[in-house]
Amino acid sequence: MNITFIGLGVMGYPMAGHLAKRDGFEVTVYNRTASKARQWTSDYPGAMDESIAGAVSNADVVITCVGADPDLRSLFRGDGGIIANTPEGALLLDHTTASATVTRELAEAASSRNLHWVDAPVSGGQQGAQNGQLTIMCGGDKASFERAQPVLDCYGKVSHYMGEVGSGQLTKMVNQITVAGLLEGLAEGIHFAEQAGLDTGAVIGAISGGAAQSWQMDNRAGTMIAGEYNHGFAVDWMRKDLAICLSEARDRGATLPAAALIDQFYGDVQAQGGGGWDTSSLLERLRNRSR
Amino acid sequence: MNITFIGLGVMGYPMAGHLAKRDGFEVTVYNRTASKARQWTSDYPGAMDESIAGAVSNADVVITCVGADPDLRSLFRGDGGIIANTPEGALLLDHTTASATVTRELAEAASSRNLHWVDAPVSGGQQGAQNGQLTIMCGGDKASFERAQPVLDCYGKVSHYMGEVGSGQLTKMVNQITVAGLLEGLAEGIHFAEQAGLDTGAVIGAISGGAAQSWQMDNRAGTMIAGEYNHGFAVDWMRKDLAICLSEARDRGATLPAAALIDQFYGDVQAQGGGGWDTSSLLERLRNRSR
Amino acid sequence: MNITFIGLGVMGYPMAGHLAKRDGFEVTVYNRTASKARQWTSDYPGAMDESIAGAVSNADVVITCVGADPDLRSLFRGDGGIIANTPEGALLLDHTTASATVTRELAEAASSRNLHWVDAPVSGGQQGAQNGQLTIMCGGDKASFERAQPVLDCYGKVSHYMGEVGSGQLTKMVNQITVAGLLEGLAEGIHFAEQAGLDTGAVIGAISGGAAQSWQMDNRAGTMIAGEYNHGFAVDWMRKDLAICLSEARDRGATLPAAALIDQFYGDVQAQGGGGWDTSSLLERLRNRSR
Amino acid sequence: MNITFIGLGVMGYPMAGHLAKRDGFEVTVYNRTASKARQWTSDYPGAMDESIAGAVSNADVVITCVGADPDLRSLFRGDGGIIANTPEGALLLDHTTASATVTRELAEAASSRNLHWVDAPVSGGQQGAQNGQLTIMCGGDKASFERAQPVLDCYGKVSHYMGEVGSGQLTKMVNQITVAGLLEGLAEGIHFAEQAGLDTGAVIGAISGGAAQSWQMDNRAGTMIAGEYNHGFAVDWMRKDLAICLSEARDRGATLPAAALIDQFYGDVQAQGGGGWDTSSLLERLRNRSR
Ligand SMILES: NC(=O)C1=CN([C@@H]2O[C@H](COP(=O)(O)OP(=O)(O)OC[C@H]3O[C@@H](n4cnc5c(N)ncnc54)[C@H](OP(=O)(O)O)[C@@H]3O)[C@@H](O)[C@H]2O)C=CC1
Ligand SMILES: NC(=O)C1=CN([C@@H]2O[C@H](COP(=O)(O)OP(=O)(O)OC[C@H]3O[C@@H](n4cnc5c(N)ncnc54)[C@H](OP(=O)(O)O)[C@@H]3O)[C@@H](O)[C@H]2O)C=CC1
Ligand SMILES: NC(=O)C1=CN([C@@H]2O[C@H](COP(=O)(O)OP(=O)(O)OC[C@H]3O[C@@H](n4cnc5c(N)ncnc54)[C@H](OP(=O)(O)O)[C@@H]3O)[C@@H](O)[C@H]2O)C=CC1
Repeated sequence: MNITFIGLGVMGYPMAGHLAKRDGFEVTVYNRTASKARQWTSDYPGAMDESIAGAVSNADVVITCVGADPDLRSLFRGDGGIIANTPEGALLLDHTTASATVTRELAEAASSRNLHWVDAPVSGGQQGAQNGQLTIMCGGDKASFERAQPVLDCYGKVSHYMGEVGSGQLTKMVNQITVAGLLEGLAEGIHFAEQAGLDTGAVIGAISGGAAQSWQMDNRAGTMIAGEYNHGFAVDWMRKDLAICLSEARDRGATLPAAALIDQFYGDVQAQGGGGWDTSSLLERLRNRSR
Repeated sequence: MNITFIGLGVMGYPMAGHLAKRDGFEVTVYNRTASKARQWTSDYPGAMDESIAGAVSNADVVITCVGADPDLRSLFRGDGGIIANTPEGALLLDHTTASATVTRELAEAASSRNLHWVDAPVSGGQQGAQNGQLTIMCGGDKASFERAQPVLDCYGKVSHYMGEVGSGQLTKMVNQITVAGLLEGLAEGIHFAEQAGLDTGAVIGAISGGAAQSWQMDNRAGTMIAGEYNHGFAVDWMRKDLAICLSEARDRGATLPAAALIDQFYGDVQAQGGGGWDTSSLLERLRNRSR
Repeated sequence: MNITFIGLGVMGYPMAGHLAKRDGFEVTVYNRTASKARQWTSDYPGAMDESIAGAVSNADVVITCVGADPDLRSLFRGDGGIIANTPEGALLLDHTTASATVTRELAEAASSRNLHWVDAPVSGGQQGAQNGQLTIMCGGDKASFERAQPVLDCYGKVSHYMGEVGSGQLTKMVNQITVAGLLEGLAEGIHFAEQAGLDTGAVIGAISGGAAQSWQMDNRAGTMIAGEYNHGFAVDWMRKDLAICLSEARDRGATLPAAALIDQFYGDVQAQGGGGWDTSSLLERLRNRSR
Repeated sequence: MNITFIGLGVMGYPMAGHLAKRDGFEVTVYNRTASKARQWTSDYPGAMDESIAGAVSNADVVITCVGADPDLRSLFRGDGGIIANTPEGALLLDHTTASATVTRELAEAASSRNLHWVDAPVSGGQQGAQNGQLTIMCGGDKASFERAQPVLDCYGKVSHYMGEVGSGQLTKMVNQITVAGLLEGLAEGIHFAEQAGLDTGAVIGAISGGAAQSWQMDNRAGTMIAGEYNHGFAVDWMRKDLAICLSEARDRGATLPAAALIDQFYGDVQAQGGGGWDTSSLLERLRNRSR
């Protein structure tokens, strides 16, 4: 099977690598900055192409993992784009975290050339991509999802079928909304403990067995207390995702007061210089107040 | 050892029961509404007394588990109160969730009669009290904490020593602050999923293995989706606790924007008639908007 | 002077009317729904055209007052659009409340055909448009602003020159951000007074001479107390404007926590069925909690 | 008429002065820190007393203007306090901004000695106190309010009768709630303008004639832009007042999400060292984010 992988960033680079090592998959990569693609071909068994049109011209499956909505539009649209140049009948599998709106728009455009769309945003971070332990949330028709399964199995711990096109993206949004509230709660709890003069590590130890427990508490409280924020998903990405969530909520008649507020707090973190810190850095915003 | 237990509410009733069944503990109970104390003596091997002064007059340990700060002041202060009537040298062990301020104030008053204070708020809810599986967060001097240990072991899964008087209460506050953000995040996530027309249960299934995971997601998402809110700690109690947190934060120079906002959202739940619902009912507030 | 006016909505209809009555201005109108344009020509001395290209083909000034960003793009772009068909050297005067981003984008596209852009969003509402008493905030080069002045004078109480292209829009955003906080404060004040059982009208009377005074208090408190929300700018429009503000703030590194939160509260008003109510209906959201 | 004035702070000192200059009023002052009372007697024609009991023993009217609830309790209660020592039938007139709860509690205690209570919090700030231009919001029975009128006229621009005991305090709370939202909106507007690179003074000039207008915009925007925060009511006082509002709202079933959030933002200002700045310093919090 011929697979084209577009977007060799923090996530895509190792994901494409997992595919290349699988028997029966012929992988061709494309990256806007070609040097990264060249580097990739020296790390993994696979080819590269310097144009999108060339990269996709023989593909059975085209996988994308780029930045955000405008990036998707520019990659898929136009004469040199993915939709125009991919062989009819191929599968388009998108791992970008993007809006459901752009997803449906591009899926519809693709269907006019009989290309099948599966939106498949991931969670699990850089580490999950490297270890092949991602959680993948998929939208599209059921047959296309099943067709994607052997590919997803190369880097996914588990892949969930969530429903029609866009459902993968919407599920990812639920994840981000939930994480935002959870992290702000955790940050405020730790901030309070610090201001109250408690032994913060001991406090987390005392409460982590009960109703306040969370993956973030188990995995991030320690690094937060230590002021280390290089453990995962960056604030700049989170703001992109929350903007998508808030825009989608607006369209769907949902209101997300905490998510909207916390999005602004992430703006404060950016103003502090923390756009590249991981999302648990909401604590640093609280610590920064008095500096 | 003579133990007096004051406050046979949802929590205190079974906690006192666990003590009564332990060899070597002679338990006397007092409850403002005497009928409950009478009922208790028919369920468990122990005595009751209709006055505080009488109930504590021979106590080695006096345990309290009542409502809030004003209740503590009225029980401990005054000629007929606990401090005036408990034998010198006894241990005062308070399971009420109260402010660190009233805790320090009463502990100091008690020390003038050589009474030792351990503040020991609990988490684990009604079920934890019944099963003897509470998590207990303790403040006081280390020797007093150790003296309390055999008592705490009767209904505690684990007891944590957090530091000087008030530290137990402060630790419990960290718990409540953290839970508030976490639950609002979860409620907004579920609300979004519902408005987006997703299969909400499947969404929770898809994201509960990753960064959004929490005890609340594992144990409450299902009941939230079903609109069942009789599973634990009530909104009215939560507002009391958050008021304590916010007041303490004010004194300690901490700011808790999400907790402050969510406290108001719990006020909306109360206005909906949900003061007695459990804390996960933040979701019902979002659902109620359009009714 | 030949003036083309595009967009005969609540605002544009009377604004175009004021121009038509001015000596020396030959007004041609275009409206997507042609029937409204026809109606306008029976109310005012002026012509209509059923195509954009036709309407602008002889214009010295093209005025637009339409919905939002996508509407502007669709009107200005393309072979049949304003930019392609307006005579070189003409002035483009846009009264739409839109983003600074689309404004700069279109102004730049226009400049390639030597068309001059002034963004000129207004405040003062339907009444201001009818009475010719609008406040107009303008961005563009100074010469273009001065060229626009005689036009603006027909329906403006005052026109302010704010700086380069986009500055008019940015100034309007400052207005909306400020109004949002002000109205939520006023709504919470009135809600509190009602819940406290005060004579709310008397309360407003007592505080309106001091630090709490505002145009909104002077002009809307009475209608808010009466539950009348048909006095101006609609919630649906406000959400569009706040979305623009929040997106622009994101790009500019500003954080707007109250505006972000109140935007969500307007979402609650929409869910109540109040998308068409005026912006002071934040009060009704608070009243609705217990229904 | 014998008038006793207790509390010669920023507000009380000049207020007592206005009374002393009125014919027919014999003024005796008491201040906890006696040196201030001594200073006052050298500035104004009146007496001082070093004990509360002595100061009130011949009073027809006892006026208080102190800090907060606990201060009132300590002044009015006890053997040496105001209630025990004021002649029966006298009028108690309280200008402190305090809770309605403590107000009703003390008014009731006072009535047992046939003392009449009028709660009369003020607005207008230090300048209003000095110029005798305060706005005064009164609660109590109508007859007592009328009895207080000649006194209030000495330093009030206008006095409003709001209803039964506590209504003055509740009205003042409405004022504070409203001001909080208004100032945060104004601060966010200015912050946005600054980040957008606009001429902020010109922006305020452009929008101050319309829907965004407020007393704060007219009187504080200029000083805010200049970063001057010594123009009135301090953040520390505001937090006391907002705590009262939020506690009262809790009891009355009102929810105040913006006020609750802004109260936390004032906490950030305090953490920045701005407890003594005036309430418009919410802007400085936004400016501080990136430092
Ligand atoms: N990092 C993480 O922890 C997680 C990320 N995600 C999501 O995965 C996606 C990718 O993230 P990540 O790998 O971290 O991002 P990176 O910034 O590391 O990589 C982005 C990749 O996309 C390419 N790209 C971006 N825009 C364009 C464009 N317009 N045209 C062509 N190529 C483009 C980049 O090319 P070039 O090299 O030329 O810049 C690069 O290869 C995002 O949507 C993110 O939200 C999801 C879960 C976790
Ligand atoms: N319920 C829960 O899930 C949890 C509760 N807590 C905390 O534990 C404490 C007790 O909660 P819970 O048992 O649920 O409460 P309940 O309302 O069920 O019981 C309260 C008990 O305190 C007594 N009491 C209250 N005020 C006074 C007073 N002024 N004088 C004398 N007795 C008084 C009551 O007596 P009477 O019978 O006469 O009313 C009753 O026995 C609270 O602080 C709560 O926040 C902590 C964790 C979980
Ligand atoms: N400042 C302002 O702009 C405005 C203030 N207010 C309100 O007016 C009240 C007074 O404010 P302000 O004058 O600025 O405050 P100050 O702090 O300047 O003065 C407080 C006064 O109260 C006395 N006092 C405080 N606590 C006690 C106590 N426990 N026993 C005896 N005396 C006490 C102080 O005495 P000592 O000299 O010994 O400290 C002092 O005379 C407050 O409630 C405030 O919220 C209302 C509107 C505007």
